[in-house]
Amino acid sequence: MMAPSISARVYYEDTDAGGIVYHANFLKFAERARTETLRAGGYDHKRVMAEFGLLLVVKHLEIDFKAPGRLDDLLTVTTEVVSTGNTSLKLEQKIKRDEQTLAIIKVVIVAITSDGKPSRWPPQLRQIFGSHKA
Amino acid sequence: MMAPSISARVYYEDTDAGGIVYHANFLKFAERARTETLRAGGYDHKRVMAEFGLLLVVKHLEIDFKAPGRLDDLLTVTTEVVSTGNTSLKLEQKIKRDEQTLAIIKVVIVAITSDGKPSRWPPQLRQIFGSHKA
Amino acid sequence: MMAPSISARVYYEDTDAGGIVYHANFLKFAERARTETLRAGGYDHKRVMAEFGLLLVVKHLEIDFKAPGRLDDLLTVTTEVVSTGNTSLKLEQKIKRDEQTLAIIKVVIVAITSDGKPSRWPPQLRQIFGSHKA
Amino acid sequence: MMAPSISARVYYEDTDAGGIVYHANFLKFAERARTETLRAGGYDHKRVMAEFGLLLVVKHLEIDFKAPGRLDDLLTVTTEVVSTGNTSLKLEQKIKRDEQTLAIIKVVIVAITSDGKPSRWPPQLRQIFGSHKA
Repeated sequence: MMAPSISARVYYEDTDAGGIVYHANFLKFAERARTETLRAGGYDHKRVMAEFGLLLVVKHLEIDFKAPGRLDDLLTVTTEVVSTGNTSLKLEQKIKRDEQTLAIIKVVIVAITSDGKPSRWPPQLRQIFGSHKA
Repeated sequence: MMAPSISARVYYEDTDAGGIVYHANFLKFAERARTETLRAGGYDHKRVMAEFGLLLVVKHLEIDFKAPGRLDDLLTVTTEVVSTGNTSLKLEQKIKRDEQTLAIIKVVIVAITSDGKPSRWPPQLRQIFGSHKA
Repeated sequence: MMAPSISARVYYEDTDAGGIVYHANFLKFAERARTETLRAGGYDHKRVMAEFGLLLVVKHLEIDFKAPGRLDDLLTVTTEVVSTGNTSLKLEQKIKRDEQTLAIIKVVIVAITSDGKPSRWPPQLRQIFGSHKA
Repeated sequence: MMAPSISARVYYEDTDAGGIVYHANFLKFAERARTETLRAGGYDHKRVMAEFGLLLVVKHLEIDFKAPGRLDDLLTVTTEVVSTGNTSLKLEQKIKRDEQTLAIIKVVIVAITSDGKPSRWPPQLRQIFGSHKA
């Protein structure tokens, strides 16, 4: 199965004086893609909080910058599950311009309660990401 | 004629600890809408620089905040010409959620050369925005 | 009396591919200056919420861009009261590099309850800004 | 020797609707700290470009989130060299609130020419970071 993907256009807000996408902004594109994966499975962040009392937060993140993004680029962001545990989900996300990979992101997401305690992932949510395995 | 519009989803990156869209981020949505109006007319920022040696920059901006935006909202941003001069273009932009207007932005855009000197607007570009008059 | 001021260094995060400070980011510098004025008066945002149940939010904002800010610039942001009402406070803020004014911001701040209702400004808070009149 | 450090105040711009510092914004704090280390050694980004024709860019980055940052927090960011090569510099940065570590960042910085080609690190620059070894 194909990894689900979103498009992200590069606007001035995303770039810096080096003429390229500011490095931390690739993480925004990745977060948008995770949110859209969730939404495609029927959940947005408000529903996750309302139904389970949980926030999904980034616990660990690794990013390898292969090539710069530039103003006006139309990027694609893919999201695939690497592994799932009871309390965490590990994803690999790729940011591409056409066939060229600009960045590879590995991210561990955990579910926490509103007072910050780690929680098991609700199976319904884990499945949304989990069903995207290649 | 209808004002051209874009959609903008509210992600975590756009919000602040007040639980609402951070006020300055409405300006990012407005800038995306102006860029997409330009693109719909056949120009992106690179082409504007390559063809005319010009940057389009914000000279003056006024924003009236009517209601807050919230996480997961799907917003609409419209762009209409208020007036055009030789060296500037005045636009009114509205940010809405369904029928509710969250913010009204009035913005004056000028064209400058790469060393910062003001320039006349190229008619082709002015027309792209100008043809959107109601 | 002198207007209170803060310094703001321009980092890559603040700039865009035009090689200048991204226009909306001047509003971040202005917001930092307002927050520091509040803090100098003994209040931070958490204490405003805890003591009065209020958020201070931007209701209206006008910004005139005079000259661009650039990477590595050390900017100064001043904050002066223009007028005070029962429910709103109007400030003028200037962003300068040495003696040159880069932007002038006029901003109306209102106090709202956590469910979004407008409220009178607590006199203690109004006074913090109000005592800064020239 | 102590690692050099900067302070970073958490403003509304840094937070998100989860009530905490938006994860990608920790990377902005880290970048400010690297820039200030450089500046303390006599170089800013403009001088690096003017003197060597180089940009310093992030090639790889790993971040471990230990605890959330919150509005009004005063954070400290330290920067230490892990290893230096001819073409890259590996740093470890810690973001702390008082004695508590909120995030640990490992980042590989490379020097590239303005057309994107990797270059050896100028010894003067490597030394600025290198002299900070514990």
